[in-house]
This record gives sequence, C-alpha cells and structure tokens, in this order.
Amino acid sequence: MLTLFFALRGNGDNDITIKILYCGICHSDLHSIKNEWKDSVYPLVPGHEIVGTVTEAGSNVRKFKNGDNVGVGCLVGSCRSCEKCVRHKENYCPNLVFAYNSIDVDGKITYGGYSNTIVVDEHFAVKFPENFPLDAGAPLLCAGITVFSPMRTYELNRAGMHVGVVGLGGLGHVAVKFGKAFGMKVTVISSSPWKKEEAIGRLGADYFLISSDAEQMKAAKGTMDGIINTVSAKHALLPLILLLKSEGKMIMVGAPEHPLELPALPLLLEGKILAGSCIGGMKETQEMIDFAGEHNIVADIELIGVDYVNRAMERLEKGDVRYRFVIDVGNTLAAA
Amino acid sequence: MLTLFFALRGNGDNDITIKILYCGICHSDLHSIKNEWKDSVYPLVPGHEIVGTVTEAGSNVRKFKNGDNVGVGCLVGSCRSCEKCVRHKENYCPNLVFAYNSIDVDGKITYGGYSNTIVVDEHFAVKFPENFPLDAGAPLLCAGITVFSPMRTYELNRAGMHVGVVGLGGLGHVAVKFGKAFGMKVTVISSSPWKKEEAIGRLGADYFLISSDAEQMKAAKGTMDGIINTVSAKHALLPLILLLKSEGKMIMVGAPEHPLELPALPLLLEGKILAGSCIGGMKETQEMIDFAGEHNIVADIELIGVDYVNRAMERLEKGDVRYRFVIDVGNTLAAA
Repeated sequence: MLTLFFALRGNGDNDITIKILYCGICHSDLHSIKNEWKDSVYPLVPGHEIVGTVTEAGSNVRKFKNGDNVGVGCLVGSCRSCEKCVRHKENYCPNLVFAYNSIDVDGKITYGGYSNTIVVDEHFAVKFPENFPLDAGAPLLCAGITVFSPMRTYELNRAGMHVGVVGLGGLGHVAVKFGKAFGMKVTVISSSPWKKEEAIGRLGADYFLISSDAEQMKAAKGTMDGIINTVSAKHALLPLILLLKSEGKMIMVGAPEHPLELPALPLLLEGKILAGSCIGGMKETQEMIDFAGEHNIVADIELIGVDYVNRAMERLEKGDVRYRFVIDVGNTLAAA
Repeated sequence: MLTLFFALRGNGDNDITIKILYCGICHSDLHSIKNEWKDSVYPLVPGHEIVGTVTEAGSNVRKFKNGDNVGVGCLVGSCRSCEKCVRHKENYCPNLVFAYNSIDVDGKITYGGYSNTIVVDEHFAVKFPENFPLDAGAPLLCAGITVFSPMRTYELNRAGMHVGVVGLGGLGHVAVKFGKAFGMKVTVISSSPWKKEEAIGRLGADYFLISSDAEQMKAAKGTMDGIINTVSAKHALLPLILLLKSEGKMIMVGAPEHPLELPALPLLLEGKILAGSCIGGMKETQEMIDFAGEHNIVADIELIGVDYVNRAMERLEKGDVRYRFVIDVGNTLAAA
C-alpha cells in the first residue's frame, strides 16, 4: 500500500468539500488499476462510490450545508449546457468528467474516493436520506444507479412485470432488490447453481435459472418483459433473447471485452430491443437514493479497512465477495 | 411456370374477396420458394404485397364495398384478443397468420398473392387512397410498413433529425423516401459506390457513405439520431453503431442468416439501442398507406408479367432490380 499525497482544487463558489467516510470498490476500479481499458494515467486513485460529510460549502451552494451526508458517484462534471445535460442525462454528455482518471474542469486529473477528501461541484453530489446507512449505501452510487436508470428508462419498473437479472454480483444483487421494491416478479439467471439459495433465500428473488440448464431455460422462454444483463464475461445472447416476451427488452450494463454473437432474426421476428446503458444522470441518481431510502434498499457489503484493499482486489477478481467491498475510509485511512 | 389451382375458403361474414391486380416480389418470397427458412410447405404460392379490387363483401364488413381498391400485406390473421392485438400490434401476436405458407383460421395453408383471388378478413386489408398507384403502391404493404413502423415506434420521424439508411434495396429506397417526407436529413450507407447517384440524384437522399471507406465513416461518426438497417447479408455492426449519436437507435429490419458480431461496450458507454422490427400492425399499415398517399410515396418498380417471375427471381437473387419487381397479375395471369 502506497500512500499518495495530492492536492485537490480549492473549494470554488459552487463546490462542496467532502470528508470521505466510505468508498465502495467497483470492478471498474480493478480494470483501471490494471490499465485494462488502456487509458489509465498513473498515479491513479480509484473510487466512485463515495460517501462522506460536507465540511465546506461555496457561497453559491444551495443544496448542502456543513455536516450533510452526501454521495458522489461516477460523475463529477459535465458541460451543463448540451442537450444531454439539459435533459438530466449528464452521463451521456460528451464532456463529462469521471470521478477519477479523467480531466477535471481545472485541467487536472481527477482522483477518486480511496482518499480522505474530495471537492466537487454541488450538482454532482446527492443528498443521503436521513438514517440511511452510509457504508451499505455507498455502492448504490455506481452499482445502484447503473441498474436503476435503465429499469426506469425502459419502463422495467412496473408492478406485476417479470424481469430477469443475469449475473448475481455487485450490480445484479441490487437489481433484484429494486425489482422487488417495484413490485415485480424477479428471476435470477446465473451460471452458478450455488447462488440459488442466495438469490431466493437472501435477496428475495422469485425464481432462479441456471443458464447452462437448457430445460430450465426452455421452460422460461418468452416469459420476461425485460432483462438486466450485468455479465461482463463473454456469454451467449440467444438463450437470453429467447427468455424475453415479444417486444421485450434486454439492457446490457456489463461490458464484455470481446464482441458477443448477436443472432438478428430472433430480435426482428418479435420486435425485441437490446440496449446499452451507462450509470445515470444526477437527477435520477438523487431519485434512486431517495427510492432506496424509502424501501430500505442497500447493497450487501463486506466492510474493510484500507490495509485490506489489495487483498480485496484479488478476491474481487475471483468473484469472491457478497456483493460489494466497501472501504471504511473514515476510520482506517489516516489523514495527511 | 406451373399453374396451380387451389380452393380458397368461402367468403365469410367478416371477409372480403379480392380480385388481385398486382403483387410485389419480396425477398422473403425467394427465401420461401427455396425453403431457406426450413419451414416451407409445398405447393407454396408466395406474395404478400397484394393489391386488388373487392369483388365480394360479407354481411359484417364495414370498411369496404365492392369495387374498392385494397391492399393486403404479410398478415391475414391474428387472435384479435391478446395484448398485442389490442395494442394494434397484430404483427407480434403469437397466433398471427401470414399471407402464405401459414395455417389459416380454417386450418388450411394460406396461399399468397401470385394468384387471381384472395379471401381475407376485412381487418387485414387496408384501403388504398384515391388515385394512388396500385402497381407502385403494392410494395409498401411489406417493404413500406417494415421501415415505416420502426421509424414511428422509435420516433425516428421528426423533422430535422438525421437518419441513416443502410442498404439501398427494396426496403432502403422506401426508407429514404419516408425519411425525406418526415423532413429528416437522410444519409444512405452502402457498400456499392455506384449507388451514390441513385441515392442522391434519384431518391433525394442528402448524403451517401461508402461503408468500406473508413475516412468517410469516421467523418460521419456520432452524427445520426437513428439508423434503419436493411442489410440481410453478414456485415459489421460496429462501424454503424459508431455513426449513431449517444442514445441513438439502430433498427434492424434485414435478417442476416448468421449471427453478427456485437461489441457491447460502444452500446453501453453511449446508451445506444439496437432493436429488431418486423413489419407492422394493421392500424399503422393503413396510416402508412394514407401518409404515402399524401406525400406521393411509392416504390420504384419494374412491372413484369407472370411469365417473367422465374427470371425476376434470378435477378432478385443478384440484387439486379431497382428496386422492386411487381407482377401485373390482373393483366397477365389467366383466371382459372
């Protein structure tokens, strides 16, 4: 473990300074550390599931005051004026600034939440509901909004609908919880038979399908209004497309490195949709956190100290976590 | 050429009997004749771009009277009561009946438009606008609705938007015409450089991209609100996905036999949609024909006699038609 000292920008008129208390470990952090996306700039401070307390608020800040508990996710900047920003879809702004390994408004590289402090424009922070767990709430800032946003955008949030969740990891387990809170029938589709008990017993899913079991998959054919596909490994799309009702929608939120095989005819004949989705805008991130607060939805986490981060990364790589590591930054990272 | 005699069902109370005047030749006809979809039942009478005149109307028929010019497309039956049918999406009804090679309500195989007469429930016929060309209008009943329906469903019909049309054949050339009638900027993307003059000079497209020209494709990156992809041969999706703006939509209406390579990350990062679409419902088919009538949109056709059908099929297979063969059934097929 290397301690990195870096200077943050001063707190501007629209900014808040946040004393970081917790930060989730997202799989993106691992990709970035290892430069698997070929765009890492070192030194790199990962972390975009950040929760903390406001310690300074600029003169123009309206949403927050000192002492407020706030969250910061993947986004810390955007142009604020393009069509995407105006429609509250800052996540698709061509000039968005990510929480780390991105060029900030001041021209400097951004550093993420594995750190004591962060300074952000108040627009890119969300208010945490009263009494909402700060540690288990942290992963919602990336994993939560990543599944919540497409469920809302594609209207896969209606009571009585049947939604499939492919992959039961950091994203998938939160998708199950949102699905149940929306009043939906939720089926988990996984390649790991041992996750059945987890999915149904612990997370409240209604059904569980083993993706390699052709009989099970066939029996569920044409039953789902939508699927949230969180798998980032190479996998077969056709068996999943066949699970959809006609006009059903599969939303991809995992990012397989290599191209997948897409059989076009099954999409055509039944008017099905395959879409990609990437996190969400700030307005819907706030709404997601508020919804989570109302329905007591948090991530299932394993809280760790900073000295465990490297080991956690090794375990994450093997999928050995249920379902999100969260770093107890406030209690274990000594301030500079 | 083999003359086939077959018995139609009697004209029921809800049916109309149509004396067929014209029938377009769709690529599906060729697939079916050759049993390329492995579901052909012989003898097979193809044809689902049927235009003719009503010669008999059952006692419950409300929309039509004898002498009316009407069109029949791919659909001649559906359950009329499922959620799809109620939403005027009969094209996705699980019990739909196709115009040919399908099991009709009376349990018999349906025979299509390469024939003198057809009997259909009035629900599955559309009224042709006054003075609308019957021959050049025929291909709209399949090719037209196939591109019109997704353009409306996915809101790729707004004036000022930029739409790409991939492939300039029977479907593509009509998509260009609808796009221009909607007030859109239309770019044709084709692998055939010689089609540029056709696309711009004859059909009114604004721009033309040669899909193999990496420089041209790069220059057009991120400029399109949507793409209507009519290509049914194997082709690369990534260069097309990159043409889309973020949150852009590519609708597949051609059906490549083999799976295509789908790079998931570009879909994810910019929230793009890939969807399949199959013809359209009866309500929107009528609306499509009415819109075509108002905007003088017809297919570019080569009118042929029945004795030329086999030769036309050979030419169609080589793509040697601009852009649709239509059989002059009324004048060249002797009635039994």
